[in-house]
Amino acid sequence: MIQRTTNFSAGPAVLPVPVLERVQRELLALPGPRASILEISHRSATFKEIMAAAETNLRQLLSIPDNYTVLFLQGGSRLQFSMVPMNLLDGPRAQADYIVTGSWGRHAATEARKFGDVRMAWDGSKANYVCTPADSQIDSSPSSGYTYFVSNETIEGVQFATEPATQNSTLVCDASSDLLHKPLDISQYGLIYACAQKNIGPAGVTIVIMRNDLLARSGDALPGYLSYKSHADGGSLFNTAPTFAIYVVRLVTDWLLNDIGGLEEMHALNKKKANMLYQVIDQSGGFYQGHAQADCRSLMNVVFRLTSDPLSAAFVKEAAEQNLAALVGHRSVGGIRASIYNAMPLEGVEALRDFMIQFRKKNT
Amino acid sequence: MIQRTTNFSAGPAVLPVPVLERVQRELLALPGPRASILEISHRSATFKEIMAAAETNLRQLLSIPDNYTVLFLQGGSRLQFSMVPMNLLDGPRAQADYIVTGSWGRHAATEARKFGDVRMAWDGSKANYVCTPADSQIDSSPSSGYTYFVSNETIEGVQFATEPATQNSTLVCDASSDLLHKPLDISQYGLIYACAQKNIGPAGVTIVIMRNDLLARSGDALPGYLSYKSHADGGSLFNTAPTFAIYVVRLVTDWLLNDIGGLEEMHALNKKKANMLYQVIDQSGGFYQGHAQADCRSLMNVVFRLTSDPLSAAFVKEAAEQNLAALVGHRSVGGIRASIYNAMPLEGVEALRDFMIQFRKKNT
Repeated sequence: MIQRTTNFSAGPAVLPVPVLERVQRELLALPGPRASILEISHRSATFKEIMAAAETNLRQLLSIPDNYTVLFLQGGSRLQFSMVPMNLLDGPRAQADYIVTGSWGRHAATEARKFGDVRMAWDGSKANYVCTPADSQIDSSPSSGYTYFVSNETIEGVQFATEPATQNSTLVCDASSDLLHKPLDISQYGLIYACAQKNIGPAGVTIVIMRNDLLARSGDALPGYLSYKSHADGGSLFNTAPTFAIYVVRLVTDWLLNDIGGLEEMHALNKKKANMLYQVIDQSGGFYQGHAQADCRSLMNVVFRLTSDPLSAAFVKEAAEQNLAALVGHRSVGGIRASIYNAMPLEGVEALRDFMIQFRKKNT
Repeated sequence: MIQRTTNFSAGPAVLPVPVLERVQRELLALPGPRASILEISHRSATFKEIMAAAETNLRQLLSIPDNYTVLFLQGGSRLQFSMVPMNLLDGPRAQADYIVTGSWGRHAATEARKFGDVRMAWDGSKANYVCTPADSQIDSSPSSGYTYFVSNETIEGVQFATEPATQNSTLVCDASSDLLHKPLDISQYGLIYACAQKNIGPAGVTIVIMRNDLLARSGDALPGYLSYKSHADGGSLFNTAPTFAIYVVRLVTDWLLNDIGGLEEMHALNKKKANMLYQVIDQSGGFYQGHAQADCRSLMNVVFRLTSDPLSAAFVKEAAEQNLAALVGHRSVGGIRASIYNAMPLEGVEALRDFMIQFRKKNT
């Protein structure tokens, strides 16, 4: 039995051990079909039950209203960067508002420009992506097709505490790195999506939750796979669904409901974990410097620097020697990134906190 | 330990047991990173080695020439139905030729009409999709952007014995249900692709093999995820790759090389398996009626009918009681479909053969 590392990867990221153990146990044969989840038809009764259970769990965890559709798609956030404007910008709505608070929002806006006019409702690049805007700073237009934002910027560690207030009833959110980290009021969103590999499951499936009236905007000329309406009409079986990834999403959402107790409990634990690290940063006398402003700090990705690059490198190396892995910051920001998604246990964060305190003592 | 069924599913389909056992063994922690394959970054050294090994295996098995790129994408064949015309039809090439020998070719042609002029180079629907065309019947045009065909029609069980001869140097092939079932001369193809879940791995990854010069046709206005060039430039890491599915493809191709001995050996075994079933059909005095003409029969999907629908239903039910599962034909064709991809062992086919003989005796 190999000892597992404490894995701070930004994604694909740590999964709950009970989930991995169940996947392992069932891997050669699910009890009903006596075949592996990797081998059964996406149209089999067994798989349809698994996908329905995943959807039911999501609906329960997030209190998703009945007038919203849940889709399980492939292609990750990158494909959503195109699908959102290609579906939601139609004839009378040729313009979209983008609130950009980090790298992923910038990429999404760049892609959207291929399909319509992009208004920058707020551009955080001028402030080096360290904060979210105050509502009064957001220049949104009611005539835009939608207003887009990224709830948690994984690279910069900048997170919205609440939804931005806009003039637009169609709020679109990329929640790839924080969906299911706390309860949400889904009725505030026109569409919210998340690729699974950060907070919900393995790479290879993207969850889209959208208000049913928006499905009417999907035009017939769209590439078939890129039409939300095609997927909604087919019950996420327009093509062969990524069956294994959906199966794991079902197990992760089971774990959230049954082992954690729901999203209120998950949120409390996430706040406790993040505060543990931010406190060390704030009390380090500048030895550790957080990237984001204090009021916009992410509960999922704790991004900080040390006073020099060699010191950051030593931090990563010595942490790895103590079984604390994947702490290198994204190449565009540098420094350290500790991703502490739902599945990162409290003990993992405590171990990192202790290491940070010890490393500072040793180096000051 | 649950006894596994003999699984004739058309896809997702049976996988080699040694592959499943290795996935199971490593599921909680890969030796190097001491984290699950489900939890490691697509940019980690470990995953990059896995993807490189999968590509090396494919290159070795298929003798892929150096001037071809191998991509690992998401979205299945349905996304390729759009990506092929969107990338390969550019300004001077607004027309494509489609050779349609079954349901999947028809779907692909329907999708391509959104992006250019589709010429039907051969239309098998008039013959109820029971055969492939003779080369002399193919009406292809050298001025078309490409000529498209489906090497094996999974639903009808119709397979090309050799590549169709065309006037066009850019032959495009959907080989979703038979890639790796025998050696190919890749240099005959401009682009050949296969979703993994029939003959190569689990659902969620699609392998695209394309001649490098064709990458120049991918225009800048394409949706980012739909550009072959974006994926080639990013080494299949334009976005987060479906890491787990690629890991399984690597293990399946290891199995083909090391346990089977290569594609010549695989082809011999596939012919032996298919002939075993077709012989029972041919010697049944009309009790079993094959769908495809004898010279176009698929080595992967053996499609046949019994003399009545109730008898077909009884066949499926009694087979399942003898542990022979997933034999129902596709709803559009009816009858029986026995999918016997690479990973279906000879013993499984022998068991089905014996059942077919016994069922006929009992019912005549």
